[in-house]
Amino acid sequence: MIETDILIIGAGPVGLFTVFEAGLLKLRCHLIDSLPQPGGQCSEIYPKKPIYDIPGFPSVLAGDLINNLVLQSAPFKPGFTLGEAASTIEKQADGTFVVTTVKGTEHKAPVVMIAGGLGVFEPRKPPIDSIGLFEEKGVDYMIKDPEVFRGKKCVIAGGGDSALDWSIYLAENNIASEVTLVHRSASFRGHLDSVQKVIDLADSGKIMLITEAEVTDLKGGRVLEEVVISHSKNGEIITKADHFIPLFGLKPSLGPIADWGLEIEKGAIRVNTLDYSTNIPGIYAIGDVNTYENKLKLILCGFHEGTLAVQSAFARIHPDKKNILKYTTVNGVNGF
Amino acid sequence: MIETDILIIGAGPVGLFTVFEAGLLKLRCHLIDSLPQPGGQCSEIYPKKPIYDIPGFPSVLAGDLINNLVLQSAPFKPGFTLGEAASTIEKQADGTFVVTTVKGTEHKAPVVMIAGGLGVFEPRKPPIDSIGLFEEKGVDYMIKDPEVFRGKKCVIAGGGDSALDWSIYLAENNIASEVTLVHRSASFRGHLDSVQKVIDLADSGKIMLITEAEVTDLKGGRVLEEVVISHSKNGEIITKADHFIPLFGLKPSLGPIADWGLEIEKGAIRVNTLDYSTNIPGIYAIGDVNTYENKLKLILCGFHEGTLAVQSAFARIHPDKKNILKYTTVNGVNGF
Repeated sequence: MIETDILIIGAGPVGLFTVFEAGLLKLRCHLIDSLPQPGGQCSEIYPKKPIYDIPGFPSVLAGDLINNLVLQSAPFKPGFTLGEAASTIEKQADGTFVVTTVKGTEHKAPVVMIAGGLGVFEPRKPPIDSIGLFEEKGVDYMIKDPEVFRGKKCVIAGGGDSALDWSIYLAENNIASEVTLVHRSASFRGHLDSVQKVIDLADSGKIMLITEAEVTDLKGGRVLEEVVISHSKNGEIITKADHFIPLFGLKPSLGPIADWGLEIEKGAIRVNTLDYSTNIPGIYAIGDVNTYENKLKLILCGFHEGTLAVQSAFARIHPDKKNILKYTTVNGVNGF
Repeated sequence: MIETDILIIGAGPVGLFTVFEAGLLKLRCHLIDSLPQPGGQCSEIYPKKPIYDIPGFPSVLAGDLINNLVLQSAPFKPGFTLGEAASTIEKQADGTFVVTTVKGTEHKAPVVMIAGGLGVFEPRKPPIDSIGLFEEKGVDYMIKDPEVFRGKKCVIAGGGDSALDWSIYLAENNIASEVTLVHRSASFRGHLDSVQKVIDLADSGKIMLITEAEVTDLKGGRVLEEVVISHSKNGEIITKADHFIPLFGLKPSLGPIADWGLEIEKGAIRVNTLDYSTNIPGIYAIGDVNTYENKLKLILCGFHEGTLAVQSAFARIHPDKKNILKYTTVNGVNGF
């Protein structure tokens, strides 16, 4: 069991800066993140993109901002559980919380701060009524281990790089016995050379390419057996398939946190702007994951929210101590 | 008459960043500051001191932070009225405000944001009952033009650099006919060489040095005539004087803004945390100058407050337009 003062769910910029502000109050933090490295979207999605609205930086690459925040929080030695999404929370008799990840790692703290950003990224599912019947029975929203598809008939749907690249991979390496790629439009959004490669593989018969068409139904018994493809001009095509792999990208979602009993409003956690506390005493929500009247989903707002939240957390953890704001310009930063 | 969208009183870090956030919404700003350069206290008092709690900067010199913020706001071409404190505000029939400085410069805007930090710095006055009777009649809290004291009998009080340096200046240059320096303690807080020089000038009879003593009363008719000095051991000394110059440093004060009809609480302006608006519609207060429950006087909080305030200002200035948050990472920064 990992124990700390403040357990932060989400190791993005706001979670990282909150470690620093908590440290100034002598509170220790541990961060949980489903991604394998700190930084959230800044590291995962756009590390090389400049951000222009971080105060004091006319321009800063998202990855550099994260490196700076990691350095800034380093004196307060945060702990990290990375590559594991937080899954469940349980309030203990002593008022503390135990948060367990999807891999079973347990964490205990008197205060939990959710700094989960836009949440975890979940696959975008196509609107096929029968799709739920075949999840884990032939429908796969992402490819983790391509060997699963060896010798199988696969139908992939989508028009972006992910759909193109996996079609190429499964066909070119002779992993799948059949690869059908279905795409709504006649043009693809992926890299030009990937598009060219798919066309070449279609010409040589290694990929069955069906454009201007959509998968509209799935059929089977215990497992998936057939995919129904509706073509805009040619009507329905029914093809035998062991796997249907819709690759329509990822969309953000609160994930398991949505079931923690927190007040949720349009996919975000409702907080009190006095201290960014949620409806559950001891749980706070800061940054893009929260909502309140006039909320702006900006990193700089999350910095403010985390700073006010740790003051409130201090009062909760040390009800008998008075916390007096000390300026770092006067007192410096004294790490752990 | 200078006209703008948002008139910002105070060109410190929060005022400067607010120019940037307003600019993203295509609103123009003009800043008024009593100091001769932008940056507020960061530039005036501690430009070479490191600040450790600006998010993303493990350490940044206050002066460098200001340079960065000036650069960041530059694309939106702010106007500046520097070296002039804002003095009066008048609401016009059309709902706009006219703000006039102590030097008479007039500014007109539909929105005023007070980002005045700890306020203007006013002289700390010694607790002498009769002092008010002789202000501008012999009592001077600061020395602007030393020639005023030529041939006069001067009593200076204080133990810091300001008291030491002016005593030396008035005595050494034979400006005042008599210089008496009164200090409460036997030791001085000023630079060692200044202290040595005062002692040398006292030895040569050019300064009358009275330590472990305080000025306790002032006497005179139309103007100041005598200063009563109470010595801790030797009792009262009464000395003839044309001027009494108490130099006890400066203390922050709201200054003329205190008379603008704003709700003041412990020297700060009460705001609504929804948008950091004050009790006067169209006037906002952001940064150290404002107060609300759980307020922290931190620069990073002012950045958030200014950002939310300009959204509200936009709705006020353009009641018919809808403002949709655009991310700089996606859209870049398009200056004026």
